[in-house]
Amino acid sequence: MEPNAQNILDGDRRALARAITLVESTRSDHREKARSLLQTLSQANRQAMRIGLSGTPGVGKSTFTEVFGMMLIDLGLKVAVLAVDPSSTISGGSILGDKTRMERLSRQKNAFIRPSPSQTALGGVTRRTRESIALCEAANFDVVLVETVGVGQSETMVADMTDIFLLLLAPAGGDELQGVKRGIMEIADIILVNKADGDLKARAARTCADYSGALQLMRKRPQDPDGFPKAMMISSAENKNLDTAWAEITTLFEWRKKTGVFADLRKKQALIWFQTEIENGLLARLKDNPELATVWKSFETSVLSGKIPPDIAAQQVLALFQK
Amino acid sequence: MEPNAQNILDGDRRALARAITLVESTRSDHREKARSLLQTLSQANRQAMRIGLSGTPGVGKSTFTEVFGMMLIDLGLKVAVLAVDPSSTISGGSILGDKTRMERLSRQKNAFIRPSPSQTALGGVTRRTRESIALCEAANFDVVLVETVGVGQSETMVADMTDIFLLLLAPAGGDELQGVKRGIMEIADIILVNKADGDLKARAARTCADYSGALQLMRKRPQDPDGFPKAMMISSAENKNLDTAWAEITTLFEWRKKTGVFADLRKKQALIWFQTEIENGLLARLKDNPELATVWKSFETSVLSGKIPPDIAAQQVLALFQK
Repeated sequence: MEPNAQNILDGDRRALARAITLVESTRSDHREKARSLLQTLSQANRQAMRIGLSGTPGVGKSTFTEVFGMMLIDLGLKVAVLAVDPSSTISGGSILGDKTRMERLSRQKNAFIRPSPSQTALGGVTRRTRESIALCEAANFDVVLVETVGVGQSETMVADMTDIFLLLLAPAGGDELQGVKRGIMEIADIILVNKADGDLKARAARTCADYSGALQLMRKRPQDPDGFPKAMMISSAENKNLDTAWAEITTLFEWRKKTGVFADLRKKQALIWFQTEIENGLLARLKDNPELATVWKSFETSVLSGKIPPDIAAQQVLALFQK
Repeated sequence: MEPNAQNILDGDRRALARAITLVESTRSDHREKARSLLQTLSQANRQAMRIGLSGTPGVGKSTFTEVFGMMLIDLGLKVAVLAVDPSSTISGGSILGDKTRMERLSRQKNAFIRPSPSQTALGGVTRRTRESIALCEAANFDVVLVETVGVGQSETMVADMTDIFLLLLAPAGGDELQGVKRGIMEIADIILVNKADGDLKARAARTCADYSGALQLMRKRPQDPDGFPKAMMISSAENKNLDTAWAEITTLFEWRKKTGVFADLRKKQALIWFQTEIENGLLARLKDNPELATVWKSFETSVLSGKIPPDIAAQQVLALFQK
């Protein structure tokens, strides 16, 4: 059954789920319907707070999402959880966003959890996620939490489509530094050191201090108020400090809204999306041409072997495309 | 006078300078000649050690380059210094790579210093720099040092075309943290804390320890041997530890050569260059079409005002391009 725009706008979760299935499809008739649906829904012009969340396996992402999500629900908010897992194209499956690991949250009528699909066409992850976020916003969710396990460029991708980015870390002990992926310090707004409870409390404090120090060595971003980005300790198990984390998130969000940073960011993201789609479309068209695909490949080989300089090779491919 | 390929291969610095002027030009007949020259020179298949160097104004980049360059010259190496300053398109001028600030080095016959041009066509900085590096390699330089002041994305750009990336810092005192640009920790191979002399020595040690700590919080990159990336202290004024810095650079360089990382990196960079040139060429062609340029602009406005979702807008531009 086709997802109905009005049902989505009314917050019908089954209609939303079907719509996400539709945007996940790469069949051209499905693409056509997805585009038309998105255009209709965009007229409602609804915006949620989009939160990106990254953390390696074992750090407690599901537990955090469950407890954090329940807290937001209790505050009267509608919460959607989406999962981005580029590795699922390779491994053929993912537990990210698994509903069985967020038992309480998944039973709430104001919550919507969407695991990452087990098979995704390569390169389609970005588009699918962007479109799924747009669908959740149209369905009137207040908070859209986009989780990623941080494989490849997925954090940057998620940061490019969210308003606030959280990094969840486990306490590190002594020599056993956990090694945050380089680049993540650039996009994290708030680092949450999880499991600050029981035996791990002291370690958590040390880890938190280490990351606070590292963040201070970096230049304050113009879009941040004083004190951000910051590192803080939480305990999902004991539900400690999640309210403080939420207070920090809303402080940052409200500040960005007030200063116009939020609007600018959304505009910039829309422009990047627009440009990326055009670029990808052009490249796809170029590569779809079987004759040119052969030429492209052969020039690539020449570039890799050092036979032709990259710019010369590019010129020659472009010349062929012009004909 | 046109630059002669053989003269460049023979290491004639005037021919090299003229060739760089040629690749800086955007005139289409000059572009044609530049391409043909680069293709001829590429057959010599010469490779230098390409070192990227970043640091904010006042950190002592010129003094470092002068002393470091002289040390390499004394070791019997040929050294080229190129400057990348994307801000020069706006300010209309740049002192980066100023020969008068590298008085001794500029007088060496085995040195070549090229200041960044005062006016550069927007978007041409990347291509000009890549091509200038290729020209210096053809002219048989052993080390090509590419300096940048770190405006906008220039560090990433330089990192994408060099083998080793150095970040030069001044000692920071107490509260007055200097605030490294976010993202730089991702690309720096070696952080050099300069001015570790006189009164600043203690501060330098503290700064060095802070950055060592921050680097340790990040995951080791697969292309790095143990201990890298690292932070160390130097003094350009007292010529202290520059030899150790050079030893670290060569250690990292040799390790990357031995493990095949160097070859892979160069191949990856060539592929990125190839792809970027094709993408830019396609987009330039699209934007050159006056009718489409108008359409593009108007869709961009609709995207910014939120009237049309980015993907729908992109589809419509692409559809027009297809016709």
